[in-house]
Amino acid sequence: MSTALKSIKKNARAIHQKILKRQKPSMRLPVRALNNVRYKPSEGFFEISGKKKERTLTVGTVKTFAQTLRMMALSKDLIETDDIASKREAYYISKNWREAAFREQPESDTVMDDIEAMLGVNREQLGFIPEEKGGDVAGRLVVIDKDGDTGKSIRIDCTRFGSGAYSIPIGVEHLEFQSKAKFILAIETAGMFQRLVKHNYWKQANCILISMGGVPTRACRRFIRRLAESLDIPVYAFVDGDPYGICNIYRTLKVGSGNAAHLNKFFCVPQAAFLGVTPQDILDYKLPTHELKPVDIKRAEDALKNDPFIKHYKAWQDALRQMLKLGQRVEQQAFAKHGLNYVIETYLPEKLANPKKFLP
Amino acid sequence: MSTALKSIKKNARAIHQKILKRQKPSMRLPVRALNNVRYKPSEGFFEISGKKKERTLTVGTVKTFAQTLRMMALSKDLIETDDIASKREAYYISKNWREAAFREQPESDTVMDDIEAMLGVNREQLGFIPEEKGGDVAGRLVVIDKDGDTGKSIRIDCTRFGSGAYSIPIGVEHLEFQSKAKFILAIETAGMFQRLVKHNYWKQANCILISMGGVPTRACRRFIRRLAESLDIPVYAFVDGDPYGICNIYRTLKVGSGNAAHLNKFFCVPQAAFLGVTPQDILDYKLPTHELKPVDIKRAEDALKNDPFIKHYKAWQDALRQMLKLGQRVEQQAFAKHGLNYVIETYLPEKLANPKKFLP
Repeated sequence: MSTALKSIKKNARAIHQKILKRQKPSMRLPVRALNNVRYKPSEGFFEISGKKKERTLTVGTVKTFAQTLRMMALSKDLIETDDIASKREAYYISKNWREAAFREQPESDTVMDDIEAMLGVNREQLGFIPEEKGGDVAGRLVVIDKDGDTGKSIRIDCTRFGSGAYSIPIGVEHLEFQSKAKFILAIETAGMFQRLVKHNYWKQANCILISMGGVPTRACRRFIRRLAESLDIPVYAFVDGDPYGICNIYRTLKVGSGNAAHLNKFFCVPQAAFLGVTPQDILDYKLPTHELKPVDIKRAEDALKNDPFIKHYKAWQDALRQMLKLGQRVEQQAFAKHGLNYVIETYLPEKLANPKKFLP
Repeated sequence: MSTALKSIKKNARAIHQKILKRQKPSMRLPVRALNNVRYKPSEGFFEISGKKKERTLTVGTVKTFAQTLRMMALSKDLIETDDIASKREAYYISKNWREAAFREQPESDTVMDDIEAMLGVNREQLGFIPEEKGGDVAGRLVVIDKDGDTGKSIRIDCTRFGSGAYSIPIGVEHLEFQSKAKFILAIETAGMFQRLVKHNYWKQANCILISMGGVPTRACRRFIRRLAESLDIPVYAFVDGDPYGICNIYRTLKVGSGNAAHLNKFFCVPQAAFLGVTPQDILDYKLPTHELKPVDIKRAEDALKNDPFIKHYKAWQDALRQMLKLGQRVEQQAFAKHGLNYVIETYLPEKLANPKKFLP
């Protein structure tokens, strides 16, 4: 039986027994808020602190209480029938719960968040999937999935997609991996990914290429995390050299986000290091740049002041200060100035010769 | 030699000969503007009308003239070396063109648009690719691609991706297809696509599933177009029943967009028909809905008044008016009210029994 299913049954049984004893049933939920978060470098992610709230069955909480139990029952069904429901589908299903129907989707989303925090599992393990797909893969990797009808294994060879790629499914908990790759290269833009795929860069570097398409989705982050863990190889991030690439895309990939702290332990990628583009690369490679916009400056200054991850690493503070001093940001595509395939022939090989120099 | 390469050489030669004759060289470009567009139902897309502008080499045009020629030369290189450049890369390459360097990317984008309009080909045929990936495929389809190094054929079997999918590359001109599918189902949301993939819906319906993820990217539209043409099968759109799903996603898929009229002949999918969700489905299937927001009402009213495609089809005017009268919009996921797999077991089979009833 899955951990999630065990946990649902245990919690439901406790509530049932309280009711049989004619006591008020209650649930204990971690407080999900920014002021209940800490960054633990040893663990490698934003973690929820100890504060809990108690939801006791009263006249005022009866509807939410009932909704939480029905949502847990739905999850139990999904797991037992090997089905899935998106957050929006879960909301619509409730339309048949009479008085317990959710009026708006934010209500059902909140209950779902509460359940995953309470059970200490992630939503995907409960059978709930996000609305968003995201993440493409090419290179030295075989993904092992199952046929939904027969249950037979399917081997998906990511070296065999030509100019195309393997698109990561929304739920990735069931996937297994085989690979002799040396590292995973997580790329911000679809354009750069397509260039590296077009030239079979994964052959020459013996790696797995993953296109994140901006800030990676939950599915993409979980996939990279499970992949890095299962293969025990590092993840190198190759993103634009701007505050958004560093403080949003890379930071979210590596340690997670503040407002989903109860989930970061599943979705962070502590194995990640920052290959580039660094502010120093602007000088070393004489790259064409753009001026920092006010929003870039604000984002970098905010991170220096408030982001527990940036505040933990002097190397990141130095890099962001260097960027602010230069007043310039740089894009992955800027290497094209030196020739379209300069990035493949010069930049990446030079960088990869010294992974210890990557930013943390 | 490719059409694009022939056309580049022909245009370049004409300019060269003018110069040798000591005459002022010039280029004739179609005017790319909304007032130079018409909807031709027989052709099936928004088409550019006859207006042309002439760019003659003068003191005032010399920089743009030079940039246009250099961009044509870059395209020639890309085609001859079988390489690609994204729009942004093309911009950065120009940083080495001295006085002809573009200052901002919108300048280089405009020159690229001019060239594709002048040569009557699409940007992808010139070796230029968009920044954006988009579009996932699963089901009864074998895509035939080439290995970039060896040139050998690669067969990609889209029935063999488990819960994942084939991710459409940014450039699709070189792909070939094999399939005995009866139709292509183009789906708006990743969540619905994942449900149909999870349950191998393509087996039961003998079809190809494509996730558009909102308004389809150029690559996704071109892929669907080439696929539908090559296999000679219809495309059924399954999107949210709201003005955005109808007037933006579906309309763009079927006939293209107003501001890229010189390209619609490549990117439209005249084979497309609208399976649902229709306003009538709200009543027939007793679906939970949301109230139309002011932006929805404005979009529908604008379309009724100004969109040449909607104005051409009474069936669409009736459907939009029905939606406005109901004051309600409906999402693909709404079927979950009747059970998660109602959409697979009831809605889609009932609809597909009568494709002639689909909206045009």
